[in-house]
Amino acid sequence: MYSEKVMEHFRNPRNVGEIKDADGVGIVGNPRCGDIMKMYLKIEDGIIKDVKFKTFGCGSAIASSSMATELIKGKTIEEAMEVTNKSVVEALDGLPPIKMHCSVLAEQAIKAALLDYSKKN
Amino acid sequence: MYSEKVMEHFRNPRNVGEIKDADGVGIVGNPRCGDIMKMYLKIEDGIIKDVKFKTFGCGSAIASSSMATELIKGKTIEEAMEVTNKSVVEALDGLPPIKMHCSVLAEQAIKAALLDYSKKN
Ligand code: FES
Repeated sequence: MYSEKVMEHFRNPRNVGEIKDADGVGIVGNPRCGDIMKMYLKIEDGIIKDVKFKTFGCGSAIASSSMATELIKGKTIEEAMEVTNKSVVEALDGLPPIKMHCSVLAEQAIKAALLDYSKKN
Repeated sequence: MYSEKVMEHFRNPRNVGEIKDADGVGIVGNPRCGDIMKMYLKIEDGIIKDVKFKTFGCGSAIASSSMATELIKGKTIEEAMEVTNKSVVEALDGLPPIKMHCSVLAEQAIKAALLDYSKKN
């Protein structure tokens, strides 16, 4: 049911945790399942220097967020804005259709954190 | 949002894994979020001697299953049949309403595993 990459990111998720002095924080909820995703960004000179996430969501949400944080780390804000649910799922070699809603959380949390950053700056 | 007990069972889930020579196996899926729960039972003389579960589901599903396995371990089949979603959630000091559907997986997987056992015996 799940690709090797999904299983690998589920077992060893990257960038789990919090950033205490984050420059942008995004918190989004999934109306379909009730799960919540928090995303923390550290931004310097327009570059995503660090990113961490926390969720109580399912394995697909964990794998998607782990992959999404890897995709945006070291990138510019503009590049990070272009990371979508679709690019995350492609990088994971796919997700079962019924679990696609979980990957949306990662994209939305990144966008919410970038919006939070832009409001403060 | 989550009780101390839910967080504790999420962080240190009990009875995670598989039982290779299980006497009963239950596999159920959650139509709402697409998650799957597998439950393995080792039964001797009508007593649940061992129980393990595996899931790719969310934190609430993990906490509910962890608690449910503790509630049935060492109990008779009849006692295990009486463990419901409601008793699991009570033992966890509650779950947010939107996450109640996750706890149903644990009850259903136990019942499916007991049914599998009774068919084989
Ligand atoms: S089921 Fe809620 S995030 Fe996957």
